[in-house]
Amino acid sequence: MSQLRVLYPKVIDTLEEILQQYDLEMERAHLCAKLFAKASLDGVASHGLNRFPSFIKLIQQGYIDVEATPERILNIGNFERWDGNLGPGNLNAHFCMNQAIKLAKKHGMGCVALRNTNHWMRGGNYGWQAVEEGCIGLCFTNTKPNMPAWGSDESRLGNNPVVIAIPREKGPVVLDMAMTQFSYGKMQSYNRQDKDLPFEGGFDDKGRLTRHPRQILNSELPLPIGLWKGAGLSLMMDIVASTLSDGRATHQIGKQEEEYAISQFFFCMYPPKLDVFMANVDDIIQDLKNSSIMRGQEVRYPGEGTLNRRRQNLAQGVPVDEEIWQEIIDL
Amino acid sequence: MSQLRVLYPKVIDTLEEILQQYDLEMERAHLCAKLFAKASLDGVASHGLNRFPSFIKLIQQGYIDVEATPERILNIGNFERWDGNLGPGNLNAHFCMNQAIKLAKKHGMGCVALRNTNHWMRGGNYGWQAVEEGCIGLCFTNTKPNMPAWGSDESRLGNNPVVIAIPREKGPVVLDMAMTQFSYGKMQSYNRQDKDLPFEGGFDDKGRLTRHPRQILNSELPLPIGLWKGAGLSLMMDIVASTLSDGRATHQIGKQEEEYAISQFFFCMYPPKLDVFMANVDDIIQDLKNSSIMRGQEVRYPGEGTLNRRRQNLAQGVPVDEEIWQEIIDL
Repeated sequence: MSQLRVLYPKVIDTLEEILQQYDLEMERAHLCAKLFAKASLDGVASHGLNRFPSFIKLIQQGYIDVEATPERILNIGNFERWDGNLGPGNLNAHFCMNQAIKLAKKHGMGCVALRNTNHWMRGGNYGWQAVEEGCIGLCFTNTKPNMPAWGSDESRLGNNPVVIAIPREKGPVVLDMAMTQFSYGKMQSYNRQDKDLPFEGGFDDKGRLTRHPRQILNSELPLPIGLWKGAGLSLMMDIVASTLSDGRATHQIGKQEEEYAISQFFFCMYPPKLDVFMANVDDIIQDLKNSSIMRGQEVRYPGEGTLNRRRQNLAQGVPVDEEIWQEIIDL
Repeated sequence: MSQLRVLYPKVIDTLEEILQQYDLEMERAHLCAKLFAKASLDGVASHGLNRFPSFIKLIQQGYIDVEATPERILNIGNFERWDGNLGPGNLNAHFCMNQAIKLAKKHGMGCVALRNTNHWMRGGNYGWQAVEEGCIGLCFTNTKPNMPAWGSDESRLGNNPVVIAIPREKGPVVLDMAMTQFSYGKMQSYNRQDKDLPFEGGFDDKGRLTRHPRQILNSELPLPIGLWKGAGLSLMMDIVASTLSDGRATHQIGKQEEEYAISQFFFCMYPPKLDVFMANVDDIIQDLKNSSIMRGQEVRYPGEGTLNRRRQNLAQGVPVDEEIWQEIIDL
């Protein structure tokens, strides 16, 4: 697919206008548009503009209630439980991370569990949101079943993405990763190019590990990171997000006709003496960057490329597949 | 090596007596002995009795100060920073998890960062400690450098074990895992038996992934779980544990002649309505256990075998390698 570049403000305006047509109130339409645009701006189009048409479709189908806002249903110290009321997933997540930040700034740390929400799109956005406020951020979400337990040939676990974000003056450290070795999107992309994955990414239908994306797309058995270990981590995140929010777990989401009413968890810490904190983080990053190289050009830390990509895309325009942009304009 | 079985109380008494000879005060000697014995009782001898001789050696060498106790140095709401003063690692960790539990019972959640401590031996113990008090527990530790960053051929990251524990009436869910696919102990055991690892476990000295344990032991380049993803997770845990405790990071520990003065992080949540919570956890576990089987006899959840092993070993005696038991008795 050939790519266009569209200026960032123009992307936001375009999405905002569409969202208003779908009855999102002006300020909410603006933030929602910005969160989609920012994902693409930062180089994560798979969870940015590429998802916008299916987001609108979920509104049309009634899975996303554009007017719904989160509602607090429990409050114990600096832990809060919120109900997302099936509102737009990125607005709900942004709201709850903001709530966790506010709690952290008041009490040192803050925790929000969110139920009945929808896909948060690019999780990394909420990590950036935390570090921009000087907070350490952690958040994760459950999903529909899409990854097998270790030893099983059916997907009962979610790939449950997790985001961990650390403030740092020269550029924050932001890890944003799912529990599968490769995302479905990445495997589809390798498959379209008829290429093998660089490492084993799942099981074929005989239960053998394979690098062939089509076999994994057919079996629907992607590999958990670290094999049994990532399967265990995924289980833990589903338990924590769904029980603390008193919301739905992956097995319940799997019984629905679509992925909605999912559960999420947001946690922030506001480090005392942020300048000392960030200097210590920088020492750790400097040491990592001094690693001798075996593969590739350099050792990179999570989120390292983001600021540069953002700067470049702000100047040159946000990259978007021509077909996707056309699809968006036609909405 | 042939195995003995020694009754659990006898194991505790034996270790306790030795620890008292090394000047641990009676109650501390008892708890320290119990934590070692419990690891072996639960089937984790590698971080239980097998480590006891090297623990005593670190006392003899002066790296562990048997009289030191943790000291609180900062307190912001339900976050506390403690200095371990280089005391016994398992006692310090037990103390800090207990502190996190107390904070959680008072405020809903509690968080303790610990610096200047020593190896906590079996991390799972502190997970069990949390769930036995009805808390969700999370803890992790940094280590000396023993795992490469992704793309590097030198180890600058730690394998940084993490423990996540969830209360459940029929048996808690306790995940206890390091960031390497296989521990050095496991690779040594395969190497002694001249067997390949069941999955790729690290790099040979040409940077190729391999299942051959000797090649990995030689290169000292074990594989992070999920390749670049586990390397990222390890980095994040080192940052959080060392900065929030204002303690040493992996790169600083690597400059020492031994692994000591490490940093740890303990976090607890006390779920409201624990009975409802545990029923929801049980539903998730039941669904997982219903997974169809591709490999092995059944799908297992983290910690599943522990209660059975504990029951069996309580009745029949704690399994211990004959040579190790002799070594302990000779201390």
